[in-house]
Amino acid sequence: MKVTVSRKAHFNSAHRLYRKDFTDFQNNEIFGKCANPHYHGHNYELIVHVKGEVDPITGYVIDMKSLKNLIKEEVEDKLDHKNLNEEVEEFSSLIPTAENIAMVIYNWIKPHLVEDHELTITLYETPRNFVTFTE
Amino acid sequence: MKVTVSRKAHFNSAHRLYRKDFTDFQNNEIFGKCANPHYHGHNYELIVHVKGEVDPITGYVIDMKSLKNLIKEEVEDKLDHKNLNEEVEEFSSLIPTAENIAMVIYNWIKPHLVEDHELTITLYETPRNFVTFTE
Amino acid sequence: MKVTVSRKAHFNSAHRLYRKDFTDFQNNEIFGKCANPHYHGHNYELIVHVKGEVDPITGYVIDMKSLKNLIKEEVEDKLDHKNLNEEVEEFSSLIPTAENIAMVIYNWIKPHLVEDHELTITLYETPRNFVTFTE
Amino acid sequence: MKVTVSRKAHFNSAHRLYRKDFTDFQNNEIFGKCANPHYHGHNYELIVHVKGEVDPITGYVIDMKSLKNLIKEEVEDKLDHKNLNEEVEEFSSLIPTAENIAMVIYNWIKPHLVEDHELTITLYETPRNFVTFTE
Amino acid sequence: MKVTVSRKAHFNSAHRLYRKDFTDFQNNEIFGKCANPHYHGHNYELIVHVKGEVDPITGYVIDMKSLKNLIKEEVEDKLDHKNLNEEVEEFSSLIPTAENIAMVIYNWIKPHLVEDHELTITLYETPRNFVTFTE
Amino acid sequence: MKVTVSRKAHFNSAHRLYRKDFTDFQNNEIFGKCANPHYHGHNYELIVHVKGEVDPITGYVIDMKSLKNLIKEEVEDKLDHKNLNEEVEEFSSLIPTAENIAMVIYNWIKPHLVEDHELTITLYETPRNFVTFTE
Repeated sequence: MKVTVSRKAHFNSAHRLYRKDFTDFQNNEIFGKCANPHYHGHNYELIVHVKGEVDPITGYVIDMKSLKNLIKEEVEDKLDHKNLNEEVEEFSSLIPTAENIAMVIYNWIKPHLVEDHELTITLYETPRNFVTFTE
Repeated sequence: MKVTVSRKAHFNSAHRLYRKDFTDFQNNEIFGKCANPHYHGHNYELIVHVKGEVDPITGYVIDMKSLKNLIKEEVEDKLDHKNLNEEVEEFSSLIPTAENIAMVIYNWIKPHLVEDHELTITLYETPRNFVTFTE
Repeated sequence: MKVTVSRKAHFNSAHRLYRKDFTDFQNNEIFGKCANPHYHGHNYELIVHVKGEVDPITGYVIDMKSLKNLIKEEVEDKLDHKNLNEEVEEFSSLIPTAENIAMVIYNWIKPHLVEDHELTITLYETPRNFVTFTE
Repeated sequence: MKVTVSRKAHFNSAHRLYRKDFTDFQNNEIFGKCANPHYHGHNYELIVHVKGEVDPITGYVIDMKSLKNLIKEEVEDKLDHKNLNEEVEEFSSLIPTAENIAMVIYNWIKPHLVEDHELTITLYETPRNFVTFTE
Repeated sequence: MKVTVSRKAHFNSAHRLYRKDFTDFQNNEIFGKCANPHYHGHNYELIVHVKGEVDPITGYVIDMKSLKNLIKEEVEDKLDHKNLNEEVEEFSSLIPTAENIAMVIYNWIKPHLVEDHELTITLYETPRNFVTFTE
Repeated sequence: MKVTVSRKAHFNSAHRLYRKDFTDFQNNEIFGKCANPHYHGHNYELIVHVKGEVDPITGYVIDMKSLKNLIKEEVEDKLDHKNLNEEVEEFSSLIPTAENIAMVIYNWIKPHLVEDHELTITLYETPRNFVTFTE
């Protein structure tokens, strides 16, 4: 019997959407005010979903405390109160859209899970905009 | 790599659940106080989900500003502050249950998406009742 | 020691903002799409706040179950799934704006409270618009 | 055309995570402060999702009032204001983790649905931790 | 210029509402299912509000990190995953209603604030029931 | 009869908490990771509360549409997708803490209200931290 367990977390970051190989005009055309060179920012709400068999001994798919700690080490410590473009290596050549941030987070967490666990990442950029990435 | 992007929107409408070919007694039996001939109403919360490949140039599945504008034109302008039974042609012969409203919204948005994009509609009729329609 | 206890409730109604002594043009000028003669509707979220002394025997200001029942009888039964203009006597000559609905609810609940209890009404017309009425 | 309808409900319970065949030390190692022998508790938020064909006569997958009543009888009446370990038979030999509670709720509701209806249970143990069980 | 700063926190506890000097019948009459001798529980949501002058050097009324730590030490460490009746001395002779818990929390936090700071405690027992205590 | 009407709005900004006349060490001591020279950011949620007499002709304290437009012009257009330190003149010499941002917003909106209207500003910097400024 497989169950999905989900844990919410939170981080605040600054970012800017632009390509170095675009002119200012092109960046403005495509990314609008998100291209503002002085940056803007968000309170990102993250939900990490792990699907797997329920352990008959513990009644857990995965211990929520471990999952909480994993998210803290692999996501919050790397992104909270950071400028994504300037301070997070993964975004030196990747635009920090919500789509790309979700895939980066997926890649950070996935190697820590046991093989049978399926991982899904939901990321709210604002209360009205969010993305979901699943394998 | 496919990601789902989701955008929330909002509209307020009046409606009434009843069939013209039912007697008042029958409408009352099946739809209860939702059949009230004087109408009642809801603040509908809509979530439009679009699943597709992330564009390697922009980092977007779909530009959220375009999606926001599409929802405004295809849904909010047609339904907000309207009486669904009296003023929306689709519901002249279709009962405006949450299920049917979600399918109507699906049909309005779908033709504007590129072929590869998968569309899912979530519609909250109240904070405790919602429906989801996916292809 | 005075404490305020608050209880949330919910009702859905249809309404229309207009004055019978105004022309259509005037109603449209002042109330915009809220004047739509076919009505529109809302999921109203209500919070009833009662401030009073904590009873040293029970540890209660007022029993939440009594307050819940009072709200059901005095508010939900009168307004839920109703057309405020057509079916609620108080709004036959009073425009059902959020401000006026809050004052009407205040007048319905107040006579049931003991004299020392102070009553405040908060009413959300939408998740983004709300009003508060206090004595 | 299949649509999923979802209904939220709520119950408060006390519980404790431990195995009778474990020593206190082992229970503490695995369940941490959730093993507290004096119990602790939660406001559980439940979402019951039912997926099925929309009835062309009523526009409903399932009548929300029936679903609400079914949840009241099969879940709220059994779990609300209860101690899960001491007062709910299913948990006399099953640890009341969120995963297991979701599966028990699934088993209580499933027999009441028509055969074609697919059931999914989402259970929030806290606003930050939740689980989902689907067939 | 006075500003109020507010910080949300969270704890889960078990409790039971009853008086030792009441019969079971009396406890049942007054506290209903909240008197269940096996306990039930809640996810309490706490908001601590501190009103004071904005420091012209820092732009802060009080450093949110200090306030967060104060709440952790004075409230969460004492109440989270605890049985209020059995494990918290203040409730050995005081019924742990939301009203009384809010006043106990007030008394724990108040001595740590500077004299000019006004303290208000808001405590949600469930998403629909909450209390506020202010000086 | 006075009623308070409240309208929610939203903006995303980048900011940094630091004083130019402090050393890096001092800024770090007082503002911690909020002093990050690369900026970080937030989704600010704003609530503007206006208290006044209900107009007996319209049933309004203030037209919500006017209030919405006023907030758009005076707050959202100035702060949304901006870097508060670099692009908003008021914060060239004032630290953009939530307390100071709330007072700046107050000063922008107040001159547009009629004299009898009392203004209160609530500003959420994160879902767990917020401030309130009232006259």
